[in-house]
Amino acid sequence: MANKVGKSFGSDNHAGVHPAVLAALAAANDGDAVAYGDDEVTRIATARLCAAAGARSAYLVFNGTAANILGLSLMIRPYEAVICADTSHLNVDECGAAERVLGCKLLTVPTADGKLSPRLIAERLTGRGDEHRVQPRVIQIAQVTELGTCYSLRELRELREFGQQNGLLTYLDGARIANAAAYLGCSLADIAACADILSFGGTKNGALGFEAVLVMSEKLADGAQYHRKQQMQLASKMRFLAAQATALLADDLWLANARHANAMAARLADAIAGLPGVGLAYPVQSNGVFAEISRQQAFRLGQDWNFHVWSEGADDRCVVRLMTAFDTSAADVDGLAAAVKAAVVSRET
Amino acid sequence: MANKVGKSFGSDNHAGVHPAVLAALAAANDGDAVAYGDDEVTRIATARLCAAAGARSAYLVFNGTAANILGLSLMIRPYEAVICADTSHLNVDECGAAERVLGCKLLTVPTADGKLSPRLIAERLTGRGDEHRVQPRVIQIAQVTELGTCYSLRELRELREFGQQNGLLTYLDGARIANAAAYLGCSLADIAACADILSFGGTKNGALGFEAVLVMSEKLADGAQYHRKQQMQLASKMRFLAAQATALLADDLWLANARHANAMAARLADAIAGLPGVGLAYPVQSNGVFAEISRQQAFRLGQDWNFHVWSEGADDRCVVRLMTAFDTSAADVDGLAAAVKAAVVSRET
Amino acid sequence: MANKVGKSFGSDNHAGVHPAVLAALAAANDGDAVAYGDDEVTRIATARLCAAAGARSAYLVFNGTAANILGLSLMIRPYEAVICADTSHLNVDECGAAERVLGCKLLTVPTADGKLSPRLIAERLTGRGDEHRVQPRVIQIAQVTELGTCYSLRELRELREFGQQNGLLTYLDGARIANAAAYLGCSLADIAACADILSFGGTKNGALGFEAVLVMSEKLADGAQYHRKQQMQLASKMRFLAAQATALLADDLWLANARHANAMAARLADAIAGLPGVGLAYPVQSNGVFAEISRQQAFRLGQDWNFHVWSEGADDRCVVRLMTAFDTSAADVDGLAAAVKAAVVSRET
Amino acid sequence: MANKVGKSFGSDNHAGVHPAVLAALAAANDGDAVAYGDDEVTRIATARLCAAAGARSAYLVFNGTAANILGLSLMIRPYEAVICADTSHLNVDECGAAERVLGCKLLTVPTADGKLSPRLIAERLTGRGDEHRVQPRVIQIAQVTELGTCYSLRELRELREFGQQNGLLTYLDGARIANAAAYLGCSLADIAACADILSFGGTKNGALGFEAVLVMSEKLADGAQYHRKQQMQLASKMRFLAAQATALLADDLWLANARHANAMAARLADAIAGLPGVGLAYPVQSNGVFAEISRQQAFRLGQDWNFHVWSEGADDRCVVRLMTAFDTSAADVDGLAAAVKAAVVSRET
Repeated sequence: MANKVGKSFGSDNHAGVHPAVLAALAAANDGDAVAYGDDEVTRIATARLCAAAGARSAYLVFNGTAANILGLSLMIRPYEAVICADTSHLNVDECGAAERVLGCKLLTVPTADGKLSPRLIAERLTGRGDEHRVQPRVIQIAQVTELGTCYSLRELRELREFGQQNGLLTYLDGARIANAAAYLGCSLADIAACADILSFGGTKNGALGFEAVLVMSEKLADGAQYHRKQQMQLASKMRFLAAQATALLADDLWLANARHANAMAARLADAIAGLPGVGLAYPVQSNGVFAEISRQQAFRLGQDWNFHVWSEGADDRCVVRLMTAFDTSAADVDGLAAAVKAAVVSRET
Repeated sequence: MANKVGKSFGSDNHAGVHPAVLAALAAANDGDAVAYGDDEVTRIATARLCAAAGARSAYLVFNGTAANILGLSLMIRPYEAVICADTSHLNVDECGAAERVLGCKLLTVPTADGKLSPRLIAERLTGRGDEHRVQPRVIQIAQVTELGTCYSLRELRELREFGQQNGLLTYLDGARIANAAAYLGCSLADIAACADILSFGGTKNGALGFEAVLVMSEKLADGAQYHRKQQMQLASKMRFLAAQATALLADDLWLANARHANAMAARLADAIAGLPGVGLAYPVQSNGVFAEISRQQAFRLGQDWNFHVWSEGADDRCVVRLMTAFDTSAADVDGLAAAVKAAVVSRET
Repeated sequence: MANKVGKSFGSDNHAGVHPAVLAALAAANDGDAVAYGDDEVTRIATARLCAAAGARSAYLVFNGTAANILGLSLMIRPYEAVICADTSHLNVDECGAAERVLGCKLLTVPTADGKLSPRLIAERLTGRGDEHRVQPRVIQIAQVTELGTCYSLRELRELREFGQQNGLLTYLDGARIANAAAYLGCSLADIAACADILSFGGTKNGALGFEAVLVMSEKLADGAQYHRKQQMQLASKMRFLAAQATALLADDLWLANARHANAMAARLADAIAGLPGVGLAYPVQSNGVFAEISRQQAFRLGQDWNFHVWSEGADDRCVVRLMTAFDTSAADVDGLAAAVKAAVVSRET
Repeated sequence: MANKVGKSFGSDNHAGVHPAVLAALAAANDGDAVAYGDDEVTRIATARLCAAAGARSAYLVFNGTAANILGLSLMIRPYEAVICADTSHLNVDECGAAERVLGCKLLTVPTADGKLSPRLIAERLTGRGDEHRVQPRVIQIAQVTELGTCYSLRELRELREFGQQNGLLTYLDGARIANAAAYLGCSLADIAACADILSFGGTKNGALGFEAVLVMSEKLADGAQYHRKQQMQLASKMRFLAAQATALLADDLWLANARHANAMAARLADAIAGLPGVGLAYPVQSNGVFAEISRQQAFRLGQDWNFHVWSEGADDRCVVRLMTAFDTSAADVDGLAAAVKAAVVSRET
């Protein structure tokens, strides 16, 4: 895949770093600091993350896969299993990190829209107490999901309650949790309260690269610092991860970035959803638009625009994923929308 | 451990980021780039790393522990073993990452100065062909070692030859390889030619945070990209790791940084080695001075200066590690030397 | 679950040891023998296993789960994946041994009858070359499957060919391979020729407890002895595993045992398949009958007979698994068949 | 290594099965039994094992390596470490099973006689609380050690107390625990009381092949059955492991076997210890004699007798291990002693 002219809709990871984050890195570069997180910048960042989420402790790591694995490693023994959507990043896009590092099985569930429900989870609870079977221990959900959808707070609370009733902990992959908070109009703490451990994603939200693992109870945090190091996620110059977090949390920049990206996705969806032959595969509830178009249209659009063909459908249909970011402009969106329209029209002529 | 007044001699990781590296990060923040390394900045950085070392491929990762584990994972099956110095970072300071992620045993060897030799390695080659024993497969060395010492090129070549004669691959931990090249007055390629896989450390050399795994033969690189992802080391906004590498390689900044740090260590050693009651535990061959002093002196010195007590010795003696960095000034060194002198003098009165 | 009066149909593992196997154990108990397999009994047993299957080497292990894991460990790196039926023993009944010991992901496939096909496998081959995804490497099939069905030799050969065309190795779980050979009327070698590595199950076939991993090519056997030891499967008094294998191979006892068990299953199926309200969930192609009956009938039958309720169906239906063994008699079968008939009749009155 | 004429002194594993054990296997082969341990024979065996050791639960496994790994897996997280003698079976002879299956590091300690002490353990307790270091959690000892020595009960209790004071659990490898009880003249429970988890070895004591993991507290047993299955140690026809245990426990056969083996070792040591040029490398406290002789003598003796050269010494010396078993006769011992004498005499002429 090569760079194209114009704004990429390929991923919110294609975006660069927010200027405030870059500025924070420069500001943190002020003389020496003790390594591995025993410094003021890190203390402030983790304290603010905890305060924002109502968490007991926070651990900065390098990327989203690492956050998921570290979080789960605090909850699970090798014979225990994680119930997750079959489309989840954890299952599909982490190259088997869970299996290798945790040594545990993922019990995957097909879903309509990337979201688990008590009913879907219950289907994977067979075999409890049977020593031949892995023992379900964790519900793993993503908020936002890989399909751009969000759980409502009510849905999250139902999952949480179901988990507690069934001896299951909840891990929430928050690589795009900012977009979820923006969509739901709720606080980070509102979402975090529905999880035992969650991640807070910085990278897709304008950071250079950091994620945080937020642990909601003291008990689950036991040994977390050793797991992080053993999992190769302890930054020596930690202050430069922490400074990113501080920059995003200051004046709720994280939320502003997410609101903007969400708004751009909504603008895009509005512009193309009504076009002939264009459908929305999933409701637009964050910064991703999953549009169903024909393969020929996708091919034509791909000449000039960067996006992912998410899945192949029946006949000549496919779903393309169009992601917006903190720095996507209305003009970018309008340009893409025009191109989609052109691709559709050319099909019809 | 808290920040102290003045320059830290606690670690080269206590230093911040070289201005050229920060500038490169800002320069790389130019619009969108495809994620996960499929971008121009990364292509250039890896090409330059390969060129400098004579390597076939290069993989950027987040930290030194990760570089070691990724490199070893390309060489080893779980029942095979890594022979390393008992003082090695791999054995002591990586919280068992090798055991957890590789599932293999480290066969440790006591050494006088952190350096392996054919004779020392030979002692751990018993049990080959015995199915009850792990099978030695890799010689793991560090250049610079954890004790600040360097192998000569001749020693490296002897190890390499010994390895080849005995069916052993060589992995070289190059977290401070720049300091070794500076000390030996040789090229990166001269050192790299003695290894099958090595790491190139950026973080201790003025980077914000990156290391590179350099693979010298095409065969060993098979599957490296999957191992990196599975080991949670694939950066999404890779260009910002790559930009750091490019900045350090430009105009041999990496070498200049290392030379300076080495020179400061030499200056420090010269200033304190002759003082009464002060000894050098190891020859000073890089940017670390391992000084043997009394515990009382160490305690007194620790009031104002940041360093590590490396090991406790007999009677009231201990070894303190004094590290210099790319940004340590002659005045910093002279200040510390004066303090050491004062601590010594106060003892004598 | 407690013992019931009369023959158990709960599992072929409920049966005891064939008298010839017990006699072989006693005969092998003749003075000393070198441990860990360096003895005559083991040499003979492994040679005979290799000869019967056309294999290059054979490794005795303790149970079926261990055979599967050892076999797969010779084929796979942690980032590679195993494609298997979602109902497979490997996926369902081994408590996550694959994930823990191999560190790899199982890519599961829903099937109609426990059998994979090129078409089903092809669906899991997406993402090859994508570093975010595990890379499919092994097709794992069972012959007999967990649902009692057998692949025809033609189907096996098609799978094998498909695998070779797609860079996939084939592992065959032969815990009940004897029953498959008996059903197909073919040799062990006919089946083995369709796999790269397979297991040969002794335990369900009248042994006290042993399985063999048969490796068809020299290359794949590299390091097998170390994997076996590391996986805790090296018996010290190996001759007593080997003696069991020798006893089963002598005069084709393994085949006679399997033919008998298959015949008893066929007799049972014939007797009950026509009864009102009784269906066969899968074709009877080995020593298992999967009968669909009502839950009430299953409950009533369970008062006196030992069997597994395999799965719950819609309404009040369920599938019960009725297994025969080498020592199941026609009278046992007729007794059970009569009980099924009685359960059905009582329902109707 | 090939079989020699006469009794082997190569290992207590070279011996066959005690007649009472074989008889118990035949007796257990009485009709059907539910698999995987849900049968009467297993219930009785585990109850008796628990009673004999004062344990809360017992888990039968296939071999000693498996017992060690299962036991440790109940005590340890991957970042925690096991302190053990560098000569321990766990470290030397299990092909890295601990590293692969537990993912943890062994912190090895050189010892004079295979025995740990509070002082030796204390040396490995550095780095606690340092996230870069693995965290010591378990003291692993063997009773009998690999060098044939025994801890006194007082020594065991001191270790236990030291462990409790230092937050360390104790695992005791009891592959030859019977020989220790026989040597110390104490009960199994006396030894077991000094451990949190221990193994009870059957195989070297006259069994065909079984070991038991005995867990002294209910809390530590949590999840043991799943670990056992996942670690491929769940026997389907469990009654045949259990029957062996029952046979050894009946009328204290285990103790009689061990006493006899110990007596034969003592007889051997008495006969050869005074010979010129023959030394005892370690005190004889079980069923092994570690004799120091010259290499030429070892070579000559090896023409007719089966034993292991344990280690090479300075000059032309080496240590040979001479093991006795439950079935070693006084005549066997006298024959070997005469041969040693002849080898020594021939040297002197």
